[in-house]
Amino acid sequence: MAPPYKLTYFPVKALGEPIRFLLSYGKLEFEDFRFERENWPELKPKTPFGQAPVLEFNGVQAYQSIAICRYLAKQVKLMGANDLEDLEIDSIVDTINDLRMKIALYSYEADEAVKATRKKPLFEETIPYYMERIEAIAKKNNGHLAAGKVTWADLYFIGILDYMNYMVGHNLIADCPNLQVMQKTVLNLPGIKEWVAKRPITDM
Amino acid sequence: MAPPYKLTYFPVKALGEPIRFLLSYGKLEFEDFRFERENWPELKPKTPFGQAPVLEFNGVQAYQSIAICRYLAKQVKLMGANDLEDLEIDSIVDTINDLRMKIALYSYEADEAVKATRKKPLFEETIPYYMERIEAIAKKNNGHLAAGKVTWADLYFIGILDYMNYMVGHNLIADCPNLQVMQKTVLNLPGIKEWVAKRPITDM
Repeated sequence: MAPPYKLTYFPVKALGEPIRFLLSYGKLEFEDFRFERENWPELKPKTPFGQAPVLEFNGVQAYQSIAICRYLAKQVKLMGANDLEDLEIDSIVDTINDLRMKIALYSYEADEAVKATRKKPLFEETIPYYMERIEAIAKKNNGHLAAGKVTWADLYFIGILDYMNYMVGHNLIADCPNLQVMQKTVLNLPGIKEWVAKRPITDM
Repeated sequence: MAPPYKLTYFPVKALGEPIRFLLSYGKLEFEDFRFERENWPELKPKTPFGQAPVLEFNGVQAYQSIAICRYLAKQVKLMGANDLEDLEIDSIVDTINDLRMKIALYSYEADEAVKATRKKPLFEETIPYYMERIEAIAKKNNGHLAAGKVTWADLYFIGILDYMNYMVGHNLIADCPNLQVMQKTVLNLPGIKEWVAKRPITDM
């Protein structure tokens, strides 16, 4: 029988990895379908808004990676304990996504001259500004991003961190001891530890 | 006694309006604190990540507009009936936000030459692509964005629509009869109807 979940994404970690972390943590069997870039033009029109990842299960074709993660977090019990904790989680997740997009705006810029003008503000202002505040949140939450405990926000950030690091060319949490503790915690969670040991090795 | 909620935002609808819609719908009293642009440098460092809107209540300083909307939707009963309906809501809300950011990338571009190169792909490809699909979703859901009923996704989209229309210079839903029905429904909801009648008149 086919696994109940099918994740369709490029052959990278990036936006797919937080979803793979959540599925793995919950021991939810999934087909990890990785398509090659040359096949994307054929697959793209079959997605709801021309984007990947897409998670299929039970006749549902789910899109938008953060929405998928939140849905899975409910299934695998990694939500907050109440509405206020979920607000904390949602706010920090969207903030990490903001940082990811600011980095992508630099990293994916094809015009080298434009890219050069974006480098200094990104590396000297934006990244330090965000990382300092995210680290302070992790300190306040005992090595977590919200609610003082493991939630899907932690899995989301650690899942997407390799991709953000790849885009900037250095380890964003090199000077963040509390986020390093979080990384260790997440990578040692049951299910995730096994996933990380067996997943395909990719740059980003 | 001060109202239980205080919304701090620029003197515009934009990202603040979906929050004001949700507060108004729920008849939750709020202070609608609108600061002038010249006071932003003083206020900015007092926000969690240098961004507005911020919603304060009960000692909580909430940030990230979509996260705030989801939290309020829980308080005023505009969520889906189950995890799958909430997934539908979350996916379309993040998709509208994607479109909003693509529009902003054009609209806020200071370099007129760069802005000009972005105009055609945005107006001839991106906007028709998104609006066609969002309209199809509204058709399938009887004039709503998810779950076949009024949810916070409807309030989010109609709340932010004036701002998106302002940025593009035309009415995005001019050719979308189902989204027009949705707009009428939302603007006639108890609480929202009264809010819209009394709110300050602003361009965006």
